[in-house]
Amino acid sequence: MDMVEELEKRKELIEQEIEELFKDKRDHNLWELMAFYPGSGGKKLRPFLTLVSAAAFDRSEKKAIPYGLALELVHNFTLVHDDIMDQDDLRRGKPTLYRRVGDAHAINAGDGLFALAFNVLSKSDIGGDKVKELLEELSSSVLKIAEGQEEDLSFEEDLDIDEADFIEMIEKKTAYLFKASARGGAIIAGCDQEEIDHMGEYARKMGIAFQIQDDYLDLVGDEGKIGKDVGSDIQEGKRTLMVIKALENLSSDDSERLIEILEDDGNTDPEIEEAIDLLEDSGAIEYSKELAKKYAEEAKDELSIVPDSEYKVILEELVDYVIKRDR
Amino acid sequence: MDMVEELEKRKELIEQEIEELFKDKRDHNLWELMAFYPGSGGKKLRPFLTLVSAAAFDRSEKKAIPYGLALELVHNFTLVHDDIMDQDDLRRGKPTLYRRVGDAHAINAGDGLFALAFNVLSKSDIGGDKVKELLEELSSSVLKIAEGQEEDLSFEEDLDIDEADFIEMIEKKTAYLFKASARGGAIIAGCDQEEIDHMGEYARKMGIAFQIQDDYLDLVGDEGKIGKDVGSDIQEGKRTLMVIKALENLSSDDSERLIEILEDDGNTDPEIEEAIDLLEDSGAIEYSKELAKKYAEEAKDELSIVPDSEYKVILEELVDYVIKRDR
Repeated sequence: MDMVEELEKRKELIEQEIEELFKDKRDHNLWELMAFYPGSGGKKLRPFLTLVSAAAFDRSEKKAIPYGLALELVHNFTLVHDDIMDQDDLRRGKPTLYRRVGDAHAINAGDGLFALAFNVLSKSDIGGDKVKELLEELSSSVLKIAEGQEEDLSFEEDLDIDEADFIEMIEKKTAYLFKASARGGAIIAGCDQEEIDHMGEYARKMGIAFQIQDDYLDLVGDEGKIGKDVGSDIQEGKRTLMVIKALENLSSDDSERLIEILEDDGNTDPEIEEAIDLLEDSGAIEYSKELAKKYAEEAKDELSIVPDSEYKVILEELVDYVIKRDR
Repeated sequence: MDMVEELEKRKELIEQEIEELFKDKRDHNLWELMAFYPGSGGKKLRPFLTLVSAAAFDRSEKKAIPYGLALELVHNFTLVHDDIMDQDDLRRGKPTLYRRVGDAHAINAGDGLFALAFNVLSKSDIGGDKVKELLEELSSSVLKIAEGQEEDLSFEEDLDIDEADFIEMIEKKTAYLFKASARGGAIIAGCDQEEIDHMGEYARKMGIAFQIQDDYLDLVGDEGKIGKDVGSDIQEGKRTLMVIKALENLSSDDSERLIEILEDDGNTDPEIEEAIDLLEDSGAIEYSKELAKKYAEEAKDELSIVPDSEYKVILEELVDYVIKRDR
């Protein structure tokens, strides 16, 4: 099986589920706003992870669909609110929701998506005891996301952030929802605790690699593919791993210049370019790529618990995809 | 039993549960912000409704505590976000959370409270099948709250709102969470569908009466007791039932003057007084009080399904309290 084709297949499946969920509801303005992000692209990686994790143990992924859908709704709820908190202009190449409808309507639409995720889970035909476990996975990961977001909001004003702080922050903001995705698939497939834990570690490590690659693409990606302005993290002064490493490695003059650009809200394109060159020259970009590879390899090691099958191969290939993708 | 004493007892119980939940967590800034509203007063009416509803059928309310706690957390999450959306300055006599820490941190803290509510439910010792039912109650009611909030946000720009629109809006914004509270108590107590439905209707009708009284207190209440500026709804141009009725009854000159005040964001105290007098003279305040009484009576009628006990008496007296309270 070709991994990218398999990803595409589940993406279409989840898009149909989303379509079905919002059908007949769009006459209410709230639902129209709620449908905006889930209905406009995205890779649907989290449901994919759930479905393939379930299939890897149970040869069946059908039962896992409602949980996959819930994960995608939770992911989109976080995007709607993150865009407001980060004051981002573009998402998937289009103006962000709050830029279109204002903060109040966007906050509310995000809340609606969050509630809908749990509503989908409550109406699924998954048994009560498993729903309770999935509820713990999902709610714990959102608590972690909120902790990570709070740390991220504070990092922008803090120069003493080190690599460990950064990894902890992206673990919370990104990796825990990946973890909840793979663990949930394993729970639905009836796995034992050891299998569930290894699947969780697999996804957590892949999630960290995913976020490092995401930050890398923000610097060197193609705007048409990543759907936002290249260098937006520099414009916003984000303390990414690359920035943290560069500040460790650069001369004090170069460090000062980098901080100056990060703290300026109105940088020109040449200034953004200058900052990227500084990151490049410091070796921080290379370091970051290598660290993503290390987490990716560790993620694959966790899969030794999975019985051999084409699904296991997909889970392995997904890790490579995550650190090689260009969008 | 004295209803107010009983309410106070459960309020203390839920406050202890909240204290316990946030203990050892407050070193993380997110949790500090999350604890701000749940830890600063409020009547804890929703948990009370759950606990007494459970006890009315099962003589025991202990099992219902985690769900009551979840309801209170959901309620507080909605308050945190509502204050941002409505740009309110005061809550329970203190500056609102977003006024203290900014929109981004407050949005995030609200999300954390929402996630925590479901997390509490997932970690309770309530059985899986009941958790699944409670999850549906809770998530459906938050979806209704978001719909109601969306309607409320649009109403401020709409002059054609009638009484039915208004009742539907407050039903969603307020009454559905009351409904989920009483239904949840009945579910936990092992009630049959008919009992659950009657308890839901009891609480829904009481919730409507509650909100009408809330709007009334905003106009004629004591600032020290209601914890916010009297007349804030007029300042914000809210289309309350009293405003809707007054616009139907007043002469066209008086109506125009009322609309002028509602649409002005910088009214002086005498202008707010003038608007209140117009509402009074039109008979709208009296009408509103009578309608609250009607809903309260209908709520009590639903209780005929409840076996006679001191808990039933509390449920009846709670209805009277809701429409007679001054805070």
